[in-house]
Amino acid sequence: MTPEQLDAADPLAPFRDRFALPEGVIYLDGNSLGARPKAAAGRIAQVVEREWGEGLITSWNAAGWIEAPRRIGDKIAQLVGAGNGEMIACDSTSVNIFKTLCAALSLTPERDTILSERGNFPTDIYMVQGIEALTGRRIRQQLVEPGEVEGAMGDHVAVVLLTHVHYKTGRMRDMALTTRLAHEAGASIVWDLSHSAGAVPVDLTSAGADFAVGCGYKYLNGGPGAPAFLFAAKRHQQKVMPALSGWFGHAEPFAFDDQYRPAPGVERFMVGTPPVLGMAALEVGVDLFLEADMAQVRSKSLSLSRLFIERMKPLCAAHGFQLASPELEAERGSQVSYRHPQGYAIMQALIARGVVGDFRAPDILRFGFTPLYTSHVEVAAAVDHMAQVMEGGEWDRPEYKVRAAVT
Amino acid sequence: MTPEQLDAADPLAPFRDRFALPEGVIYLDGNSLGARPKAAAGRIAQVVEREWGEGLITSWNAAGWIEAPRRIGDKIAQLVGAGNGEMIACDSTSVNIFKTLCAALSLTPERDTILSERGNFPTDIYMVQGIEALTGRRIRQQLVEPGEVEGAMGDHVAVVLLTHVHYKTGRMRDMALTTRLAHEAGASIVWDLSHSAGAVPVDLTSAGADFAVGCGYKYLNGGPGAPAFLFAAKRHQQKVMPALSGWFGHAEPFAFDDQYRPAPGVERFMVGTPPVLGMAALEVGVDLFLEADMAQVRSKSLSLSRLFIERMKPLCAAHGFQLASPELEAERGSQVSYRHPQGYAIMQALIARGVVGDFRAPDILRFGFTPLYTSHVEVAAAVDHMAQVMEGGEWDRPEYKVRAAVT
Repeated sequence: MTPEQLDAADPLAPFRDRFALPEGVIYLDGNSLGARPKAAAGRIAQVVEREWGEGLITSWNAAGWIEAPRRIGDKIAQLVGAGNGEMIACDSTSVNIFKTLCAALSLTPERDTILSERGNFPTDIYMVQGIEALTGRRIRQQLVEPGEVEGAMGDHVAVVLLTHVHYKTGRMRDMALTTRLAHEAGASIVWDLSHSAGAVPVDLTSAGADFAVGCGYKYLNGGPGAPAFLFAAKRHQQKVMPALSGWFGHAEPFAFDDQYRPAPGVERFMVGTPPVLGMAALEVGVDLFLEADMAQVRSKSLSLSRLFIERMKPLCAAHGFQLASPELEAERGSQVSYRHPQGYAIMQALIARGVVGDFRAPDILRFGFTPLYTSHVEVAAAVDHMAQVMEGGEWDRPEYKVRAAVT
Repeated sequence: MTPEQLDAADPLAPFRDRFALPEGVIYLDGNSLGARPKAAAGRIAQVVEREWGEGLITSWNAAGWIEAPRRIGDKIAQLVGAGNGEMIACDSTSVNIFKTLCAALSLTPERDTILSERGNFPTDIYMVQGIEALTGRRIRQQLVEPGEVEGAMGDHVAVVLLTHVHYKTGRMRDMALTTRLAHEAGASIVWDLSHSAGAVPVDLTSAGADFAVGCGYKYLNGGPGAPAFLFAAKRHQQKVMPALSGWFGHAEPFAFDDQYRPAPGVERFMVGTPPVLGMAALEVGVDLFLEADMAQVRSKSLSLSRLFIERMKPLCAAHGFQLASPELEAERGSQVSYRHPQGYAIMQALIARGVVGDFRAPDILRFGFTPLYTSHVEVAAAVDHMAQVMEGGEWDRPEYKVRAAVT
């Protein structure tokens, strides 16, 4: 089928109109910052003008601000196979990694190692290094090659920390299998779903996952720096004393008691006052996903990435791109990456043409496919632009080699 | 002078028009959630529609999102006597308490105690209790009566954690004196400025403070759940390994290296991706304060609280209110509190009349005075309402005794 035919048959096509996208841009970076749902503008204006401006302090109760972390958490839970009362929207992914790692560590105090893979998303690894320093290296990090994680699950390992879909390659791990192996080795597991939620089907419950975290501003379209989310399986919630034991995680925050008593459920993982504006934008993005069928999202995601990989083949042969993402669709997330030594400059040349992907050091060009608003026609056009960038040597300009603060 | 005369002579009076306040409300709760600057609506709409919607990922560089935590931090620094490069806007106050406590603890590893006062703001104390649990009680909390803090600064004390202006009583500590005593005892000090920034003059530098945290959504008018701020004196920054070692605190976040290397300056205390919407609203509030003269703010604050206390005296005598805030102006923050056994119901009756203060368990009625938008006429009118609530027994209704989730 042609890209046009694929788009004509796309059941998700009507969602495109729910997003505000700039004219003349093919946006393939929704895996880094999701596009803006049109409804976000009105909803945020309502929060700012009516709820904050007029309702003022009464909006904590009257406008449901106080319930937002749990309410939005329960909604995200539906997208990743978690139950009611197992998830909250709060803090950043990094902070939630710390919270879940500390919680997981406390389940097996006789063990001393957090096992992860080299090249995992940096903040995941960095947060472990902070725990090493904080505990005087009583807790240690063990980093192994991606293919060696399962083999390294010895009886020293307290927690396995893995990203479900890798941020550079888009490689997706078998969550159920790896979770089972971790449990058989006596470890618990923390899954980072930053590149999974809203991108690929996830079933935390059937996988038996212990803890998970994820990002609100990528595929969930929650806005820049949106609150993240945190999952704690019900069976663990009562057992763990939150390391970040803030007043919003207290059983009765407004009793103003001197003694911390954690809330009975997942709310104990809240810390400070929820960021209301960010919560409002996140909820709009999540609500949109609740209208979509995740099986259709997955099917279209693969259709988009399949088309992209197919059309990129001649460019790989002619210009030295190397596919960095899995050929096998069962292992592919909702992005496709290529390695190229001139990756940074090539990406800048593409962006100058209105094809927005991104670059990840040292040599990865990333293209994210967001089925709610990306079309097959756009994917084909993106490859046409890439061909023109390469054939004319258009990327080889000094201004495309100046690195920006954020790449 | 009459309230009308005081208002006529008020140099800050023009600021009132910069805030959106609902008709018919006397808002004396800006110490809990600051009112909305009118400019916030337009600025946030710009972030949502133009920067997120059109700029998308490029706005991290092009719209200055990446610099916001440091840029806003440097602005707040001007309000509390900190230097450039000593403050960032980030996370919640609670999370920042954890970060600064861990940093302070690492300066004196041979000591084991965090000293604070009973009845400190709960989250301050709770975060210490989490550190106790996390360190297997290697680090311990010592809570003493407010007047006994200085006397308890023994050589076991690693860190003194104090709130500058108490959230219930509004009592203000002598920051310079207490900091000096802590240093003489070999401890470092973490100041919570949640009820100070934008409320009273603060000079962290001349006091020699080590670390500080504070809240963006109270007197700074940064919006509900606004990002908090964190201060680390320059002399300490290089010495401490952040406990929450996230990618945004890395020296080169976009190098995506496996090894955490903290940023050279205060940026190392950043953790995850900054909440852009919340940052934008906070900056509007802070910018407004940069236009004001803090000496005038203080002078008007005392003028407002003096009027309130004076007019409340007959009600204290007739209805059993007890002033919970210092009579001495040098010790008074920008709020006045009264104890009353029926405090909760009385506050609900006041709110029903459009006089919005708040209640803090078990028996405190709080009234915040925000000199940028509160007038003397409003303060006098608030007391008149209070008189009517008490004289008619208006507070004594069942519906005023049902506790809401947030008080």
